[in-house]
Amino acid sequence: MIYFRSDYSQGAHPKVMDALVKTNFEHTDGYGLDEHCEHAARMVQDLIDNHDCHVHMMVGGTPCNVTTIAASLKPYESVVSVRGGHAYFHETGAVEGTGHRIVTMEGANGKLTPEMIDQAWEEYEDEHTPIPKFCYISQPTEIGTIYSKAEMTALSKKCKAHNMLLYVDGARLGCALTCRDNDLTIQELATLCDAFYIGGTKNGALFGEALVILNDTMNDHFRWMIKRQCGLLAKGRLIGVQFEALLEGGMDSIYFSMASHANEMAALLRDSLTELGVPFFGSSQTNQIFPVLPTAVVKELEKDFFFYEWAPEKNGMIPIRLVTAWGTTKDDVEAFLRTIKKLLS
Amino acid sequence: MIYFRSDYSQGAHPKVMDALVKTNFEHTDGYGLDEHCEHAARMVQDLIDNHDCHVHMMVGGTPCNVTTIAASLKPYESVVSVRGGHAYFHETGAVEGTGHRIVTMEGANGKLTPEMIDQAWEEYEDEHTPIPKFCYISQPTEIGTIYSKAEMTALSKKCKAHNMLLYVDGARLGCALTCRDNDLTIQELATLCDAFYIGGTKNGALFGEALVILNDTMNDHFRWMIKRQCGLLAKGRLIGVQFEALLEGGMDSIYFSMASHANEMAALLRDSLTELGVPFFGSSQTNQIFPVLPTAVVKELEKDFFFYEWAPEKNGMIPIRLVTAWGTTKDDVEAFLRTIKKLLS
Amino acid sequence: MIYFRSDYSQGAHPKVMDALVKTNFEHTDGYGLDEHCEHAARMVQDLIDNHDCHVHMMVGGTPCNVTTIAASLKPYESVVSVRGGHAYFHETGAVEGTGHRIVTMEGANGKLTPEMIDQAWEEYEDEHTPIPKFCYISQPTEIGTIYSKAEMTALSKKCKAHNMLLYVDGARLGCALTCRDNDLTIQELATLCDAFYIGGTKNGALFGEALVILNDTMNDHFRWMIKRQCGLLAKGRLIGVQFEALLEGGMDSIYFSMASHANEMAALLRDSLTELGVPFFGSSQTNQIFPVLPTAVVKELEKDFFFYEWAPEKNGMIPIRLVTAWGTTKDDVEAFLRTIKKLLS
Amino acid sequence: MIYFRSDYSQGAHPKVMDALVKTNFEHTDGYGLDEHCEHAARMVQDLIDNHDCHVHMMVGGTPCNVTTIAASLKPYESVVSVRGGHAYFHETGAVEGTGHRIVTMEGANGKLTPEMIDQAWEEYEDEHTPIPKFCYISQPTEIGTIYSKAEMTALSKKCKAHNMLLYVDGARLGCALTCRDNDLTIQELATLCDAFYIGGTKNGALFGEALVILNDTMNDHFRWMIKRQCGLLAKGRLIGVQFEALLEGGMDSIYFSMASHANEMAALLRDSLTELGVPFFGSSQTNQIFPVLPTAVVKELEKDFFFYEWAPEKNGMIPIRLVTAWGTTKDDVEAFLRTIKKLLS
Repeated sequence: MIYFRSDYSQGAHPKVMDALVKTNFEHTDGYGLDEHCEHAARMVQDLIDNHDCHVHMMVGGTPCNVTTIAASLKPYESVVSVRGGHAYFHETGAVEGTGHRIVTMEGANGKLTPEMIDQAWEEYEDEHTPIPKFCYISQPTEIGTIYSKAEMTALSKKCKAHNMLLYVDGARLGCALTCRDNDLTIQELATLCDAFYIGGTKNGALFGEALVILNDTMNDHFRWMIKRQCGLLAKGRLIGVQFEALLEGGMDSIYFSMASHANEMAALLRDSLTELGVPFFGSSQTNQIFPVLPTAVVKELEKDFFFYEWAPEKNGMIPIRLVTAWGTTKDDVEAFLRTIKKLLS
Repeated sequence: MIYFRSDYSQGAHPKVMDALVKTNFEHTDGYGLDEHCEHAARMVQDLIDNHDCHVHMMVGGTPCNVTTIAASLKPYESVVSVRGGHAYFHETGAVEGTGHRIVTMEGANGKLTPEMIDQAWEEYEDEHTPIPKFCYISQPTEIGTIYSKAEMTALSKKCKAHNMLLYVDGARLGCALTCRDNDLTIQELATLCDAFYIGGTKNGALFGEALVILNDTMNDHFRWMIKRQCGLLAKGRLIGVQFEALLEGGMDSIYFSMASHANEMAALLRDSLTELGVPFFGSSQTNQIFPVLPTAVVKELEKDFFFYEWAPEKNGMIPIRLVTAWGTTKDDVEAFLRTIKKLLS
Repeated sequence: MIYFRSDYSQGAHPKVMDALVKTNFEHTDGYGLDEHCEHAARMVQDLIDNHDCHVHMMVGGTPCNVTTIAASLKPYESVVSVRGGHAYFHETGAVEGTGHRIVTMEGANGKLTPEMIDQAWEEYEDEHTPIPKFCYISQPTEIGTIYSKAEMTALSKKCKAHNMLLYVDGARLGCALTCRDNDLTIQELATLCDAFYIGGTKNGALFGEALVILNDTMNDHFRWMIKRQCGLLAKGRLIGVQFEALLEGGMDSIYFSMASHANEMAALLRDSLTELGVPFFGSSQTNQIFPVLPTAVVKELEKDFFFYEWAPEKNGMIPIRLVTAWGTTKDDVEAFLRTIKKLLS
Repeated sequence: MIYFRSDYSQGAHPKVMDALVKTNFEHTDGYGLDEHCEHAARMVQDLIDNHDCHVHMMVGGTPCNVTTIAASLKPYESVVSVRGGHAYFHETGAVEGTGHRIVTMEGANGKLTPEMIDQAWEEYEDEHTPIPKFCYISQPTEIGTIYSKAEMTALSKKCKAHNMLLYVDGARLGCALTCRDNDLTIQELATLCDAFYIGGTKNGALFGEALVILNDTMNDHFRWMIKRQCGLLAKGRLIGVQFEALLEGGMDSIYFSMASHANEMAALLRDSLTELGVPFFGSSQTNQIFPVLPTAVVKELEKDFFFYEWAPEKNGMIPIRLVTAWGTTKDDVEAFLRTIKKLLS
């Protein structure tokens, strides 16, 4: 069975494992108050060229999203997101669990636009309506598209105009930054939003994300919030150690080469399938692609490959999701292409 | 200044006030554990011809909605509602404040359809998504339309098919039951849904709603829930006393004659404005109407009449909301019609 | 049956009812945005001689406590209260329902002391513990005792030293202010705390409390919070109208004469029972007293009088609670004393 | 610097690291739906000789406590715990963050007694008070003491009598089970409580706990609850793999030998310090001890050893906490004893 199921089906990049093994017997203080976390935070600051920001080593993506939202909002304030956004679509109402509404908008190719923010404000009235305060987006989006520099700048401006916070879920940020269409650097991103995270789980870590808070008001007693939201890891250094390994070398680190590799494998799949005349759901630019295939083909493929059916069958066709990762090999891709060519012919 | 602002701009119907004055010096136990509340509950049971249901005297509509939702749902379960539903649109995120998502659907003439419930389920996947469990509708809707017997029956069936609870916000239930298009009796309603309330605040009470819970599972420790949600009135009998006065005589009570009067006043406005060629937003069948008028006309009207602008100006036109109530007089209506005739000519 | 059950067993003082009847047919805007609420708020400001504070007309005491706490605290901040405090003991965990802990201390004669606040801080450590931020007390306390000016000043100082907010639940504030032992004026109180409320429900209103917020930071978007906590009354003016009637004449208003009368009736009971050698639980100074009586006597009394048994029987004795109110008559008291004299002899 | 700071200052036992490295390149499904988690769950079931229970691989102890509480309770139900209990004392109000009160009792040598549960019920009244439903204890307690079989049985019986759930926080369960005073097997424990967890973080895992739910009603949609509480790890298998390594061999596994070693090191410290005449805070029976030392001695010790001061100085003495773990060596202990002998002489 070959996996295109997700970018978290394997363990960690060998360099990450090595770092964990190498530091295993060190004694350090707990809960992220150790030198590895401190060092990794400085590496993140160096990477984005901003040494005033706050960096927290977090266990996972949902804890990043939910803790930041709960820390940033007053009870009567709400989040704006596309309906397909991860925090709305795949986190079991964890945000609402902290008492905050997510106001949903139909995404435009997976993306939120400044007009959608205006629409959220048109729905706002007075003390009878929650106040839209927190703009949640992902880079790349849940369907693999990316915000261009112009789009991100426009969103940033619109948020500022409404006194809103702009938050970027970077579960797959590496893939956005290294995809061929990207024109937005991580340094630029860090000037346009109020907080974002650099995802480790989906890019070669065992687990862990580096949450970057650029807006001081969102960072008030943030560690209290992490603990209250059950996300403070006792052996917090594990995340620091992993990010030290992931980010060593900055833009030349394995963090970026792994993401780049994942993008290349996805591009190979995308280009080859396109040549075969396969249509796609959405126009992903990164490591997730959504070919739409005849049901019979999908069922055959499932014998040898493991992936998600992305939506129910419609007119005899099923959109599937193929995800590539640092561990995806050219052999995996070629095996898939060989099989599908046979099935489609 | 003549008020078409809301159906809660005056105090109570004189018979309600008389009942409060008459019982004022009685001593009773607090928190709704008195004979007036008990008696009013029996009157409600008689009215709907069901003596197994649970009736709670509640302070207001938002407490009814929020307490029932919080009492009925597990943390991972969600509410389905049209986006214009009161619990979503005008309650400042109180439902999310109890930890539950409201999944919104664009209403069809203000109404939720069985297809929308199916759509909510299509968005459901597994442990990564909240489970749609509670269907929230209003009868009449926020824009004055009503569910026919066939529509309500179809919704009820669909909810049962999905093991969902059907809840009917009856803030203006009297107006639904007495409007000329209605074919659904309160007894029938009580067999089709799991809970609903008979609104007092917007139909001649000082305040108070009679919440009817037909599904035993939703009633478990309900008084604990009312208290925890801050809604247990110390002098709870005040609501009982009011409902005794409102419902005396059953279908011939002032509860229904007041609602009927409000509908008639709205119909008079609607018919006359239609004759004048005024277009409407939505197709209200009850005591709220939404004529769309030139901005200049609206601004002139606002000198003598008090009402809401319902949405921002578009192409020089503004939809306004006119609400009639038990206290609206034919003189009020005629004054409005005289003025608008002048303005439009 | 004669009631010493509570101070909310009757309706409202006749002047309050008259005001409601007199204004009944007025049309006003809803949700407390009317002239009666505005006027009542100014009367409160005049009374406490502070025109910069914020006054909100609230439906009840629990909504005052819970909304103020939820509006004032960040998620990781907690409340400190005596274990017998109403917000802990009699509100079904409504405070915790908003996500905040109440740190409890055994009261000293029902009261919180500066030492207890220090103790709450001794239990505080770092990001693993919630931060004590909100000091909740009642004046008078749940067992009828009052804070002297010196005690309230010491608490206020201690709160300031810890950067905590001091909140005073004034459900029975009238009785504290008018009792013979009191040396703390309402004007002084308003300089010592950050927020308090003037209770109407338990002192002659149908319902309603005037919440006074002296600390601007606690008032941010407070009306949004009231709505989100389900406490914004549609016909909000009802509370304004009642407080206009209650407070007319300031310190000479019925608000104070009613409370004073309740205290006198309680004093008459207390003094007479003391003469009879009856011991008391606590040393109440206001309108609630807690005589401890032989079980057999209690059971006999319950045939003619309605009151709470305050705690379970111990050694053949039961402490009961007798509450007097504006509507308690000298006849009621004398009837009780006559009966108990017989029973004890 | 030698660490007696905590039992989570190092990484994992080498066998755990080996298992992670060995399985690193496997592809598996995410979120704990893999064969390692399944296998580890069966190993847990074998260990406790109960194959009907539910086992969840959790990220940490706070997620175990909070998710189980949130999953088990209705909004108006509360938790009973000693004030020093971890869920109250060291989790930043995370439980209250889910809306539930923790009713605190002063512990008896760190333990909850049946009498304390009765006391919680004495404070219960009716719809104005939350219902005590969930009994939270730790084995061993926060101060290292353990419940004997008789004590645990009595608690279990008392909980059943009150229809309450008994939950055992087993962050250090290994140390309880292997300490010399213990007479309660894990199989017996599993028949006396409704849920408990086998802690990995503090006994040789990188992170992770195996939560065992014995009472079906608490397990309803539990995975939805884990996700909603932000605790569902993408690479969930990491916890399964670790528990496979920890529990291989059952009662002869490294899980128990590590705990036993930690206890021995603590016993060596305890016995030697006792010989030196050092008094202790509490009477720990497991791997945490609390000697009370002169302030000057403590300050000297802090130059070479890393540990917590457990409480503020009083009368020139400070209680400190010394924690031993699987990685504590006899050399560490002897170094400490040598130093303190010098300082005390």
